[in-house]
Amino acid sequence: MAEPKDAYARAGVSIDAQDEALREVGRIVRTTFTPGVLSELGSFGGLFRPDLRGMDEPVLVASADGVGTKLMVAHMAGDYSTVGYDLVNHCTNDILVQGAVPLFFLDYVGAGVLEPRTMADLVGGVARGCRENGCALLGGETAEMPGFYQKGDYELVGTIVGIVDKKAVIDGSRVRAGDVLLGLPSAGLHTNGFSLARRVFFDVLGMGLDDIVPGAGDATLREHLLAPHLTYLPAVRPLLGQDALHGLAHITGGGLTDNVPRVLPESLQARIRTASWEVPGVFQAIARHGEVGTAEMYRVFNMGIGLVLIVASEEAERVRSELDAIPIGKVEEGDGGVVYDVGATR
Amino acid sequence: MAEPKDAYARAGVSIDAQDEALREVGRIVRTTFTPGVLSELGSFGGLFRPDLRGMDEPVLVASADGVGTKLMVAHMAGDYSTVGYDLVNHCTNDILVQGAVPLFFLDYVGAGVLEPRTMADLVGGVARGCRENGCALLGGETAEMPGFYQKGDYELVGTIVGIVDKKAVIDGSRVRAGDVLLGLPSAGLHTNGFSLARRVFFDVLGMGLDDIVPGAGDATLREHLLAPHLTYLPAVRPLLGQDALHGLAHITGGGLTDNVPRVLPESLQARIRTASWEVPGVFQAIARHGEVGTAEMYRVFNMGIGLVLIVASEEAERVRSELDAIPIGKVEEGDGGVVYDVGATR
Repeated sequence: MAEPKDAYARAGVSIDAQDEALREVGRIVRTTFTPGVLSELGSFGGLFRPDLRGMDEPVLVASADGVGTKLMVAHMAGDYSTVGYDLVNHCTNDILVQGAVPLFFLDYVGAGVLEPRTMADLVGGVARGCRENGCALLGGETAEMPGFYQKGDYELVGTIVGIVDKKAVIDGSRVRAGDVLLGLPSAGLHTNGFSLARRVFFDVLGMGLDDIVPGAGDATLREHLLAPHLTYLPAVRPLLGQDALHGLAHITGGGLTDNVPRVLPESLQARIRTASWEVPGVFQAIARHGEVGTAEMYRVFNMGIGLVLIVASEEAERVRSELDAIPIGKVEEGDGGVVYDVGATR
Repeated sequence: MAEPKDAYARAGVSIDAQDEALREVGRIVRTTFTPGVLSELGSFGGLFRPDLRGMDEPVLVASADGVGTKLMVAHMAGDYSTVGYDLVNHCTNDILVQGAVPLFFLDYVGAGVLEPRTMADLVGGVARGCRENGCALLGGETAEMPGFYQKGDYELVGTIVGIVDKKAVIDGSRVRAGDVLLGLPSAGLHTNGFSLARRVFFDVLGMGLDDIVPGAGDATLREHLLAPHLTYLPAVRPLLGQDALHGLAHITGGGLTDNVPRVLPESLQARIRTASWEVPGVFQAIARHGEVGTAEMYRVFNMGIGLVLIVASEEAERVRSELDAIPIGKVEEGDGGVVYDVGATR
């Protein structure tokens, strides 16, 4: 009696299709390798030898993240080439704010059926982000989970590991009253607030991806929603280790309202003048058409500011000039929160 | 006009429920902290200072993984308390086979709505695995993605980072003809082959989770399918750095057939006597009732062997005795693959 050779395939898992995707992915992954990478692909774990020269007390800094429902926009748009880039930049910023630079990254892709072209797009985006941030894509996992994921959906999760000398860790403990808050512009929503944004644009406004967002220039909704999450490593790297830099906050879910306090001592607060910068039209459109209050907008979206630097006042103008940053407020005595001056001018 | 305060909640994301879950999770996470952990919870990234004393060239070893469709069994069973434990043990084994011991772990939980009790169960399992393996749960991400995940489904992804001195890396390069293969028993399916197993038990046999698996003792299907993925770190740790240990293979997806060759030089092959151990009844039931051929069974399931040690022949009896391991075959000249001696006796 002939043995059925394809019982696993009948259960919905195609090992050959996985193999095809993995070979393409392997070629892409190698483009990210840095001198620290020791392992060949196909090892059980990825091996990385960090360069510890000049470090007194090496500290590893790690962060895991996903892309949230920006993935559902990528699915609608039929374009998975950018979310991987978003993810690496997001993770890079999350460890940058503690003073760390990336060593390596690992990704996870889950889907009902792994379509090799889509896999290559996803990992291609991850690899581009890794190359731009000098970060090796050291490993990853791909999981075909038929029946778990809906058709065409892909989950994407990443973990970054970076390094910083202990004496150069940025933890906000040096923040003091009088420090200046400098903002670096975001490119749009980055990777937060997509559930709300999708409800407003698709459900309330009934828009399609090729429609122009009202009051937000001539870019399509697709361009607004898939705009890349920026990396702030190139801009901020020269400041790492400088005494002038007292704190950094990556503005993700929770907005300025929740993220700036994460680096403030309890006895201080941040006063932010919202008129200091122009809130991009895409956020204004969400607020207006979704009837979303100002307080919630500043807790869900970055509102145009992707990274906040907290800088010694006497160095603020130098740093502002070097980074082309926007002065958005200051640190003062308080209770650890953010106070918004809505009407104030610069 | 009153501002709508809950626009994000109406879009399906409950920040307060997330907060409740995160607090409970925070308490659990702290139980895993080891002396290397520097960061407080709520930092953007987790900080870990590795103990590098006695190491000439510290090498980091990292691996990312998921639990696959074992998650769907956990969902059916209404029991998410074990899959996190499975995941940490899986990842621990994946870096153990290169000689590394764990430093820290990061997890990711995704769901349509994060139910706080389920979150605590999931992370509780992760924390238990971390404690048993001496691994700090350094960070993680929880993502509510309404509309992306189906009701009651939870995705769980983990990344482990471990360390090994470069001279103690196990990469299979010392494997030679005549080496002995020792197997350590698995506890069941571990985390691989669930799509096929589910098809056979649920679709072909129409079984429920409380039914007894025919020919596999008196355990229920629930007990068979949720049996824990074992950690091999406690057993193998005393051997790390010993000259006798030439290679290690973690038997996951791909089975003995694909995983043993990952540590074999191309000019050698593994000859495995399948009569050396009794294949657990759960695998026999899958093969029989699913009409799955022997070759596919050995490529999808671990068949009762969770870890393979490749050991110098002159030391094999000592190691076998110390670990209570099973001699399952040997290494010989060949082409990098596995040859099964089906009928041979020990």
